[in-house]
Amino acid sequence: MDADVIVVGGGVIGTAIAWRTARAGQTVTIIDPGTDDKASLVAAGMLGPVSESVFGEQDLLNLNLHAIGRFPSFNAELEEAAGSVTGLRTEGTLAVAYNNDDLAALDRLTEFRHSIGLAAERLDAKACRRLEPFLAPSIRGGVLTLGDLSVDNRRYLAALRTAAAGAGVAAIVGSVTQVADATDGGIRVRLAAGAGPEPAELSAPHVVIAAGWSTGRIDGLPDQIRKAVRPVKGQILRLRHPGNLPPILSHTVRAIVGGRDIYLVPRADGELVVGATQEERDDRDVTAGAVHDLLRDAMTAVPAISELTLAEASAGRRPGTIDNGPILGHLAGINGLILATGHFRNGVLLSAITADAVAALLTADQPHPAWAPFHPSRL
Amino acid sequence: MDADVIVVGGGVIGTAIAWRTARAGQTVTIIDPGTDDKASLVAAGMLGPVSESVFGEQDLLNLNLHAIGRFPSFNAELEEAAGSVTGLRTEGTLAVAYNNDDLAALDRLTEFRHSIGLAAERLDAKACRRLEPFLAPSIRGGVLTLGDLSVDNRRYLAALRTAAAGAGVAAIVGSVTQVADATDGGIRVRLAAGAGPEPAELSAPHVVIAAGWSTGRIDGLPDQIRKAVRPVKGQILRLRHPGNLPPILSHTVRAIVGGRDIYLVPRADGELVVGATQEERDDRDVTAGAVHDLLRDAMTAVPAISELTLAEASAGRRPGTIDNGPILGHLAGINGLILATGHFRNGVLLSAITADAVAALLTADQPHPAWAPFHPSRL
Repeated sequence: MDADVIVVGGGVIGTAIAWRTARAGQTVTIIDPGTDDKASLVAAGMLGPVSESVFGEQDLLNLNLHAIGRFPSFNAELEEAAGSVTGLRTEGTLAVAYNNDDLAALDRLTEFRHSIGLAAERLDAKACRRLEPFLAPSIRGGVLTLGDLSVDNRRYLAALRTAAAGAGVAAIVGSVTQVADATDGGIRVRLAAGAGPEPAELSAPHVVIAAGWSTGRIDGLPDQIRKAVRPVKGQILRLRHPGNLPPILSHTVRAIVGGRDIYLVPRADGELVVGATQEERDDRDVTAGAVHDLLRDAMTAVPAISELTLAEASAGRRPGTIDNGPILGHLAGINGLILATGHFRNGVLLSAITADAVAALLTADQPHPAWAPFHPSRL
Repeated sequence: MDADVIVVGGGVIGTAIAWRTARAGQTVTIIDPGTDDKASLVAAGMLGPVSESVFGEQDLLNLNLHAIGRFPSFNAELEEAAGSVTGLRTEGTLAVAYNNDDLAALDRLTEFRHSIGLAAERLDAKACRRLEPFLAPSIRGGVLTLGDLSVDNRRYLAALRTAAAGAGVAAIVGSVTQVADATDGGIRVRLAAGAGPEPAELSAPHVVIAAGWSTGRIDGLPDQIRKAVRPVKGQILRLRHPGNLPPILSHTVRAIVGGRDIYLVPRADGELVVGATQEERDDRDVTAGAVHDLLRDAMTAVPAISELTLAEASAGRRPGTIDNGPILGHLAGINGLILATGHFRNGVLLSAITADAVAALLTADQPHPAWAPFHPSRL
């Protein structure tokens, strides 16, 4: 056996799991391809439990609300362990609408929030522009949600890596191609042939699959699991404030522009993330059309965005699932194998409670009840 | 003396001059900061002598026509000397219009071309789309100019560098801050303090200033020269065809879209250059607004551009002059100093005849008469 626990995947999910597991005293090895092709790096880091779940997804909403409750304390522990900041923002989300249809959609969301006991304040256009003076004068109104958070997803992942390394997690660069029962009673993990000196196989009594969109590429997992996770392409922009231009936004802004949903997530360091497309495609091409549409909608919401610099346009693959919910729990059939994948648009938000849940599973405890609907047995 | 000739500036102008001068038997040193902040690298490489000169700029048109006549033979010599290709395209330019005003502007340009004896064929919308099937169906008509060329400006500069090195040109990385008469009778060139081991001063009997937009930063040049050259910012996009998508354009396409002029320059390797803004600014920020506008106008002209990948968005500074014309000739006051700068939007096009003209000046010959209006004494 090469470790107590092998974690397959080094995004925010896998790294959070590895850190917490190692901190609990286990020896942990994380295996990751080491490329930038991870949703964790492309994401915006918006932590909005309600806006990211739609009507009818009550179970996912419950999970997201559990997640937002846990995130700040987890993040504080992380910042202390890593000795760095993750850029947590607590100003909340201002959602704005540009025409009557958009406003009606916002109102329905607000009523829904109220119906489940959540705070959300309806604001007229003037009040919106008092909060965010650079919003287009043509906005019709908005809703302020103070409970939403955001985090700089790249700083957050970097902090998780630092904390994991500090807790003794070993990291191996490689792509896992297969999992199977090992002859010694544990689980055998096979890596793709690489140039490096790393072993082609490792084994451990426990293996956690946190491979995101690439989960479907791992042989040995049952077909219903492999088919349940699919890549959902997202294109996203990172803007910066040039020269001495002050920050043009202080809240996360979500805008519905002619039916299209766009979000703008400001960072303390002057970055402004604009996202995102959602495409049923399995490539990472940054297309002219998507960049144009994101810029157009962002500039419709906040015209001064035209003056910001375009620092980066990138594309990533989210791990989408058949019911938009994550997959978490022991896999029947391979003893000791735990799935923690399929987090779709909520990976950063769910990372803290996913690490808690896997820690519980590894010590034969029960994860929080909000996880019950997301067990692999549903697939 | 450190060389027979020192060339200040390693863009297409300076490097073309250095190559031809070294090939003629002189020892040549080129001094360049070595950064990517050169108009030669940002340019599109469109060689359209008429479309880049406006009514009333007859002298510049004459010069451009002289340049386009010389370019192919110069380029052929260059490709042979460098052992590489520069991507010269000879399909010509198709200019298209999207409304009646745009069409009227095109017609005026066509009449002007005809009046000076140049070929330009008026085409209806159907004929335009026969030549370029991906043009938007909404085009109103166009004009085909077969004499226009284009070249891959980056391959062209790389070939010039290879040819120059092959001819024995020495290259020094540094920024020239001052020129002055030297005590030994030549010209002294002072470099900014750098980390490298290069000398802080060099001297030569002849110094050629080919420093483009940064000409105005060189102490020792007369004020009227320094003030005559200003940086004119241009933002430009480089798109690529993803996967196995065939090239969507074969001609250089210029489109007038609602009064705005945009050009699309295809390369044999699948690159498509979309340009360009023209801004009286002295920075290299790539702004959200400019990228949006370029994409919007390009997609209006050729909707399928939305499917191309955005490989690069960049900004450069053209050396604009007070009369849009270059500055070429001996400078009165500093014996042996030659100016070859201020090529604005025509640097690549004019590079071949600029090298010829400087070679003539260095051997006490007269440059081609088309250069006469562009002598520094006019400033």
